[in-house]
Amino acid sequence: MRMYDLITKTRDGIELSREEIQFIISGYTAGSIPDYQMAAWCMAIYFKGLSPTATAALTMAMVESGETLTWPELDGVVVDKHSTGGVGDKTTLVLLPWVAATGCKIAKMSGRGLGHTGGTLDKLDAIDGFESALDRGRFIEQVQAIDLAVAGQTGALVPADQKLYALRDVTATVDSIPLIASSIMSKKIAAGAEGIVLDVKVGKGAFMQELPLAKQLAETMVDIGKHTQRQTSALITNMDQPLGHAVGNALEVKEAIQTLKGEGPEDLSNLCLALGAEMLLKARRVSSLEAGRKLLEDTMQTGQPLHKLKQMIAHQGGSPEVVDNPDLLPKAPVVRDVKAVQAAYVKEVNARSVGLIAMQLGAGRQTIDDTIDLTAGIEIFAKVGRQLQAGDIIARLHGQTEQDVDEAVMALKDAISWSPTPTAEPQLILGRISS
Amino acid sequence: MRMYDLITKTRDGIELSREEIQFIISGYTAGSIPDYQMAAWCMAIYFKGLSPTATAALTMAMVESGETLTWPELDGVVVDKHSTGGVGDKTTLVLLPWVAATGCKIAKMSGRGLGHTGGTLDKLDAIDGFESALDRGRFIEQVQAIDLAVAGQTGALVPADQKLYALRDVTATVDSIPLIASSIMSKKIAAGAEGIVLDVKVGKGAFMQELPLAKQLAETMVDIGKHTQRQTSALITNMDQPLGHAVGNALEVKEAIQTLKGEGPEDLSNLCLALGAEMLLKARRVSSLEAGRKLLEDTMQTGQPLHKLKQMIAHQGGSPEVVDNPDLLPKAPVVRDVKAVQAAYVKEVNARSVGLIAMQLGAGRQTIDDTIDLTAGIEIFAKVGRQLQAGDIIARLHGQTEQDVDEAVMALKDAISWSPTPTAEPQLILGRISS
Repeated sequence: MRMYDLITKTRDGIELSREEIQFIISGYTAGSIPDYQMAAWCMAIYFKGLSPTATAALTMAMVESGETLTWPELDGVVVDKHSTGGVGDKTTLVLLPWVAATGCKIAKMSGRGLGHTGGTLDKLDAIDGFESALDRGRFIEQVQAIDLAVAGQTGALVPADQKLYALRDVTATVDSIPLIASSIMSKKIAAGAEGIVLDVKVGKGAFMQELPLAKQLAETMVDIGKHTQRQTSALITNMDQPLGHAVGNALEVKEAIQTLKGEGPEDLSNLCLALGAEMLLKARRVSSLEAGRKLLEDTMQTGQPLHKLKQMIAHQGGSPEVVDNPDLLPKAPVVRDVKAVQAAYVKEVNARSVGLIAMQLGAGRQTIDDTIDLTAGIEIFAKVGRQLQAGDIIARLHGQTEQDVDEAVMALKDAISWSPTPTAEPQLILGRISS
Repeated sequence: MRMYDLITKTRDGIELSREEIQFIISGYTAGSIPDYQMAAWCMAIYFKGLSPTATAALTMAMVESGETLTWPELDGVVVDKHSTGGVGDKTTLVLLPWVAATGCKIAKMSGRGLGHTGGTLDKLDAIDGFESALDRGRFIEQVQAIDLAVAGQTGALVPADQKLYALRDVTATVDSIPLIASSIMSKKIAAGAEGIVLDVKVGKGAFMQELPLAKQLAETMVDIGKHTQRQTSALITNMDQPLGHAVGNALEVKEAIQTLKGEGPEDLSNLCLALGAEMLLKARRVSSLEAGRKLLEDTMQTGQPLHKLKQMIAHQGGSPEVVDNPDLLPKAPVVRDVKAVQAAYVKEVNARSVGLIAMQLGAGRQTIDDTIDLTAGIEIFAKVGRQLQAGDIIARLHGQTEQDVDEAVMALKDAISWSPTPTAEPQLILGRISS
């Protein structure tokens, strides 16, 4: 088998066999296939795509490139959830303790943020002492002990994906649906997930800006699930405006805690309920989505989700007191409110712009080497469809200096648009695809 | 400027500026742009193409990547000819002394063969003592002295093309018309050609199998000529069957000498006449193709072309006696005739198959490291449209061992097809494109 011939086949739209894809991925991981051939192959995939069978084969070849986790000791199905990334998306922080509190097993691997989108591990860093770099043994032990752990991905899992993603990132081959789908799914499968729930964001603040592309990505991932015997479902959800109010690490942890107390923003609560019901269904804890929602609502009444978050924080070395007293979270030196000067309806809050402004304030990374200001960010109280009166707070900005905040206030004006007449509240869940 | 953005633009079909293309080529030559980004860029070009302006810019950027030759001391326009490669294509050996004998200046850089196609330098190796590795000084000196030199390309000319071609060769990005066209034209321009005549082969034994693709390549190269102020014309010529009779290095030298004596195969003589007239026109030695043909025919009568070949051989260290006595050329130990057993018309002689059989006999290279048997090859007397009688020689095979020749005879049977009814002689020149 020669890589040259496999590039040619892909370039000419001829389907590769499972063995051919395994040859490519194992050769690339081992270093016998060079970066330049892999780059040409990725660009050929960008233009010609991969069939569902080939995409599933690529996923499994990446899974097999490194270690995998299995959970034979656990009673019940291990489920995982993945979001394609958005602005103000603190869903993981709410959803995981909530679902784990129903008795479901959750072994979650998360990442860090880049550009206008945030990452769960960065948010958890806002909790004093919290450790997300768990080794394999400790990660497994914690899931066995309390049904829940959140950790960073280790280099031992899917090394092929890590190497390939770094290459795609510098060769303009990131935006390829089979490559995105196999990258996401390989990580979930390698971490031992038997049920997988995907939150595919679409809109101005999402990676996918167009609904048809988001649908295609969701379908491709659910299809990989089918081919690899993983119960998978995907919700396509709106990311035109930020999710909830808070954008920024400590601010989002605070909002997540409020939500677990039943006092969170409506869109965030609703999304967690929808994704949670999917997780319970995939975990075979319930036999319908309705039953899943009911179980989640009942569990929330018991206060167990909040307790589960505390338990997780304690197990991972953090101070669980922040759950009872979110004011213990770090705070920015400069906090400023932006108020409405006259009544108007909110027409648009551009999630991408808000994400970038938060990044400029220090809440995100422009490049992978930047350090984050955990206290920085924006709370947006203007939600599309809502009417604000003169004097109402549009947003609260948190930054290091008055100048930073001045600039953010200026930029924020362009991110929000208004209407004198009523505007419609956007639909949050735009589609569902399930195996 | 970032290579990432330039790959993205090309991928998305957005035209690159001259500065952007210069940035890519100079960066790649210097090593600041890595192979993997270049491979992704080439694959993007494979799918999206390049505009005529961008293709010309790419050509000139490659020219500027290294040394260039100029011919200020010479009186008259320096012309060059390039063939895209075929089977039995000894045109250069005939055409160059012929045109040089009219007083035209020819500084020719040639290459070696690979696969089923031959290369001029390999053919010249069959002349005892002939040196094609001339340094710059000697090359220039010889053109000044006798109007003609043939040499291998030096590493100092178009290093970007050499590096890029090696990369394309292993990343399945060779078959891209703007990349092929700019590679060919950059070498001609760097060698100082002011007039360029292209022989674009099409058919079973050619790189381009389809007429529309050959036309597109020819048009692209003539277009580069227009953009770079080089008088350029291209003939599109038939390569379904081998050109002339001889396929193999010493055999082809012998046939070239015969042709310069006016005793060569009709198709070869006609092609040289057509290409030669184009060269004289581009060199502004004549004002019409008709006048060019007349000058060439008249010159042939004087015996000067044969003398010019002798002169060139002598200047480059070879034994000019082979011209008068071609039997001095090296000979294969095993020579066998294949004869017709009954009368029939020749319907097809597959040039690619004949080229591959000759290669198996030792006349060509399967890989770049193979050594060539200069004596090996095939003389094909069956030409499409001709009627052969029982007992007529179809082909004469030249090889090292009886077994090699046995195998070649078997294979040759499949390469030729016959008809009981008359067949048409193919048209040799299928199109002309000129600036």
